[in-house]
Amino acid sequence: MIKITFPDQSVREFEAGVTGLEIAQSISSRLAKEVLSITVNDTLMDLTRPITTDASIKLHKWEDEEGKHAFWHSSAHLMAEAIEALYPGTKFGIGPTIENGFYYDIDTGDNVIKDSDLPKIEKKFKDLASQKLEYVRSEVSKADALNYFTDKNDEYKLELINELEDGTISFYKQGNFTDLCRGPHLPSTAPIKAVKLLSVAGAYWRGDETRKQLTRIYAISFPKAKMLEEYLVMLEEAQKRDHRKIGKELELFAFSQKVGQGLPLWLPKGAKLRERLENFLKRVQVRYGYEPVITPHIGNKELYVTSGHYAKYGKDSFQPINTPAEGEEFLLKPMNCPHHCEIYKTKPRSYKDLPIRFAEFGTVYRYEQSGELHGLTRVRGFTQDDAHLFCRPDQLKDEFKKVIDIILYIFKALDFKDYITQVSLRDREDHSKYIGSEDNWNKAEQAIIEACEEKGMNTIIEYGEAAFYGPKLDFMVKDALGRKWQLGTIQVDYNLPERFELEYIGSDNQKHRPVMIHRAPFGSMERFVAVLIEHTAGKFPLWLTPEQVVILPISEKYNDYAEKVLNFLNNSDIRAVLDDRNEKIGKKIRDNELKRIPYLLIVGEKEAEEGKIAVRKQGEGDKGTMLQQEFVDFINQEVDKMLSEIEQ
Amino acid sequence: MIKITFPDQSVREFEAGVTGLEIAQSISSRLAKEVLSITVNDTLMDLTRPITTDASIKLHKWEDEEGKHAFWHSSAHLMAEAIEALYPGTKFGIGPTIENGFYYDIDTGDNVIKDSDLPKIEKKFKDLASQKLEYVRSEVSKADALNYFTDKNDEYKLELINELEDGTISFYKQGNFTDLCRGPHLPSTAPIKAVKLLSVAGAYWRGDETRKQLTRIYAISFPKAKMLEEYLVMLEEAQKRDHRKIGKELELFAFSQKVGQGLPLWLPKGAKLRERLENFLKRVQVRYGYEPVITPHIGNKELYVTSGHYAKYGKDSFQPINTPAEGEEFLLKPMNCPHHCEIYKTKPRSYKDLPIRFAEFGTVYRYEQSGELHGLTRVRGFTQDDAHLFCRPDQLKDEFKKVIDIILYIFKALDFKDYITQVSLRDREDHSKYIGSEDNWNKAEQAIIEACEEKGMNTIIEYGEAAFYGPKLDFMVKDALGRKWQLGTIQVDYNLPERFELEYIGSDNQKHRPVMIHRAPFGSMERFVAVLIEHTAGKFPLWLTPEQVVILPISEKYNDYAEKVLNFLNNSDIRAVLDDRNEKIGKKIRDNELKRIPYLLIVGEKEAEEGKIAVRKQGEGDKGTMLQQEFVDFINQEVDKMLSEIEQ
Repeated sequence: MIKITFPDQSVREFEAGVTGLEIAQSISSRLAKEVLSITVNDTLMDLTRPITTDASIKLHKWEDEEGKHAFWHSSAHLMAEAIEALYPGTKFGIGPTIENGFYYDIDTGDNVIKDSDLPKIEKKFKDLASQKLEYVRSEVSKADALNYFTDKNDEYKLELINELEDGTISFYKQGNFTDLCRGPHLPSTAPIKAVKLLSVAGAYWRGDETRKQLTRIYAISFPKAKMLEEYLVMLEEAQKRDHRKIGKELELFAFSQKVGQGLPLWLPKGAKLRERLENFLKRVQVRYGYEPVITPHIGNKELYVTSGHYAKYGKDSFQPINTPAEGEEFLLKPMNCPHHCEIYKTKPRSYKDLPIRFAEFGTVYRYEQSGELHGLTRVRGFTQDDAHLFCRPDQLKDEFKKVIDIILYIFKALDFKDYITQVSLRDREDHSKYIGSEDNWNKAEQAIIEACEEKGMNTIIEYGEAAFYGPKLDFMVKDALGRKWQLGTIQVDYNLPERFELEYIGSDNQKHRPVMIHRAPFGSMERFVAVLIEHTAGKFPLWLTPEQVVILPISEKYNDYAEKVLNFLNNSDIRAVLDDRNEKIGKKIRDNELKRIPYLLIVGEKEAEEGKIAVRKQGEGDKGTMLQQEFVDFINQEVDKMLSEIEQ
Repeated sequence: MIKITFPDQSVREFEAGVTGLEIAQSISSRLAKEVLSITVNDTLMDLTRPITTDASIKLHKWEDEEGKHAFWHSSAHLMAEAIEALYPGTKFGIGPTIENGFYYDIDTGDNVIKDSDLPKIEKKFKDLASQKLEYVRSEVSKADALNYFTDKNDEYKLELINELEDGTISFYKQGNFTDLCRGPHLPSTAPIKAVKLLSVAGAYWRGDETRKQLTRIYAISFPKAKMLEEYLVMLEEAQKRDHRKIGKELELFAFSQKVGQGLPLWLPKGAKLRERLENFLKRVQVRYGYEPVITPHIGNKELYVTSGHYAKYGKDSFQPINTPAEGEEFLLKPMNCPHHCEIYKTKPRSYKDLPIRFAEFGTVYRYEQSGELHGLTRVRGFTQDDAHLFCRPDQLKDEFKKVIDIILYIFKALDFKDYITQVSLRDREDHSKYIGSEDNWNKAEQAIIEACEEKGMNTIIEYGEAAFYGPKLDFMVKDALGRKWQLGTIQVDYNLPERFELEYIGSDNQKHRPVMIHRAPFGSMERFVAVLIEHTAGKFPLWLTPEQVVILPISEKYNDYAEKVLNFLNNSDIRAVLDDRNEKIGKKIRDNELKRIPYLLIVGEKEAEEGKIAVRKQGEGDKGTMLQQEFVDFINQEVDKMLSEIEQ
């Protein structure tokens, strides 16, 4: 008999050799149906593998990442089987799971697989799934593994096997298909009730552009048909909300090949939106004692040698900028912290001066392969709403709490109600890989945990996820579609103060090293605006949107009056624009509704005579006729209400 | 007899061979004393050279650049004579005039000349000047010229002569000193009444760091002793106002070797000042229909090949940035216009959409040799308050006038009362070197001239000074010391619209090319702030200064009350800071007066009891005791008065 410890620390005895599936069955047949994989003593495993010694276990269902992983990974093998059945001779690269589903990179030789071929493969997939094929694991010697794939003439698998050590290699087989795989997998294809093959793309073998381009097929599968339906609806909605699409419709930003891929051009409306967001945060930061600084977008290579960034990232970054004489080398700055450290050093600091908080909307440049670029969420140049706080160790917790306050304030203002916070701490076993004293780390970790507790936050703690230079707290928001986005971050740093030899004179008249906090509530302006677009589908809150009102004269006859209304509103600090195109009013209303401007003001003969405007609100329709000043009061009231709710 | 035409177009006859000096004498002996050089048919000449044919002439006095030039150039030769007398065997490089005075680059061999040696040279200079030595011109063959300096063993002059064409070489001799020189010079050393040798510096021969470093001696001379006195007072005042000195005292900006020379770090106070200036201009620009855009600080090399900047400046600029893969090449942007052209091209434009005005505080990077760098006035990275206006040819004049309005508004706001405006037009003789149609140029030049006239501006017109792509208008302000600074600029451009193939659809439904205007009222934030610091000696106007008020508790006992006052003021939008250091009040007052904060509020027992503050104004002293709200009203009134005066 062996002792099995469950996550709630309860212990039960089972016969040695019991499987995860049998343990689940012993609890309830419903659980046995739902369980997808198991963790045994920190190792993820198949449910069908025997457990032979005392162990701690955790059973994973669909709701757990580990459950989904096994589900989708098994689905990838099944898709490969379907493809092999339809396209004999296909060679297989890798077939991993991703955030939503899985893909397989394949070499179909002369067969070209197009989007229109996907339904056929999908059908075959479903046929196979319904046969409830078992996934069978076998451990094979390297020689046998090589033989198997030599017979199949699959140079991709051979390359992968050649890099493995003998004794560590396993195969998984279901139906007529065998794959090199570490696992774990489902017991059988039975739970796979729904699948959708999503798209075909090209992908270089091992991401190396000098090697062969394979065909990548993206797909997703579910244990229930209804889940797939919901997912597809969500996907469609996400496509409608795609910030690249809305960004183009609303003329927020653009890209130009000539300027360079991944380098956004902010068009007037986007620039206004961004400026309003920046000013909003600036005002908050002044309240919290931040001071602005401005630093250049390049720095001498020496700066990054000191900070350690050059050694770590130099080779994979934008390369150094040489000067025509004097032999200097500069780098595009990948982050603002080294510059801010140099500002800290411009004069001696005393313990009374701390904390010092330098804030900068600093544009940084980081090289990304062009294939990785994506709208505003993955770019080569972006502006961080950056700040660096230099404080004494005893100030760390309070400073941390204040930064949390700023981030939560912003989430509230932008109506991100759902967010997840993760504290990343040191590896529990091994403290050797971290810089900074044991004492400081203990204090810092304690400070973060307490800060989160005192703020009543529901925090996930991840051990081993801290940066080598300090623990951190990350904020993931869920947008209107429930998708998670990593936005704000707060990081403690013991490394840079050391490397830049930052000091302050303590009350003991001795030199001390300050602690540094890096923080960016938005993360970056580009990414944040992208998420905000997708969250709001481009309908920005009234207090923030760069265009609150559009004035629509019924015909050109009323353009003069419309112009007067425009001036009146602009002079009253209402952000209004005029659509005086010679178009039918119906078309003008439709066009401007697409622009997501909250208020449409229609002016014709009656309005011009009475000095009034007919007010129409996006999504709510007619609001009646008002005098111009009445409308100003009306809209100001709405904004004031929003802002006072944010402040509460 | 020959006919001499004077600048007022009057004509008088003289005997052939008459000299400029004789012509001056014929007018008045006072003029003959004051005249320093002459322009004969567009050629600058010695006053002693005979005029043999009919000619237009202009006589130059000290007040004219040409007069000063001859004066200082002759002084440079005289300084060289003094040096040769004191340090025989000295070899001479070049000795040109500069904006204020002149220098000579010399090789003194083993003799090292230090600042402490300057009085000795100065004394010798004065001795020689008082001898009223004549400057005698002679034309020499190249062979003779080479012989002369071979005898003197002066490899510098030999190098210069070797580059000249035979038949174009002239020597000037005064006293015992002969120099290779084109002239012109004064008739004699008689007018040189005062001289000051200012400093010694090192300078590479011909500015080439691979060649020998020579000794450069800077000096200035005057026709009256009083002028020198005034100049030295001005110089002292200028040193006190040096923006590098004040920038350090007020903690506005700093430089760091590690970040890189010529790359300013804006410290909190400087960043706040700059932000306030930017916001001030932004508000004005909104009123004038400008729209903000934001573009990256790099661009694909292709962008600058298209714009023509790469061909023109590529070799002497920061070199291209390579990527670790994909073989792309980027450049740090030296200007914002190519990016704005690409934004113009993001959608089709109609004649109704124009003018379009894109504004960006765009940071650009231009390589300067380290020896050329100077505080904030000559840097390697700077932020232009840039905008590009795309308009129809018929809109050019109106747009130009509006830009003039903005610039004059800003000068008024910052109290630059004295400014000079220069219109740069095409060369009158040769239109072939300019891009753009004759018709467009005529219209544009006319538009600028008329715009200036209609604005009642007193403009200098310079022919041949236009850029090849269009005419322009530059604004030079005189600061509090009467020094001229080039700030705002407005330039018409036909070239970039051509190169970027910019278009709009006209009312005729045909494609047309827009005209572009580049403009920057401040010029650059760095340069403008530098000039503003020197103009105001760091006493920024109350409406602009980042710190309006400092609160000084008499002792630490009143820190709590002072804190309350601080919060009250900050909540009332007064920019206040607190000096709660444990120092004597006298020291605190002195320290804070050095910080040029306009108002010092002193709080002690009486004030704390009565909820009042004792108000002290910089430069004016005690303003009595006020309630906190009274002071808020008082300072707001002062600001409102200033702002309403600016608006008038």
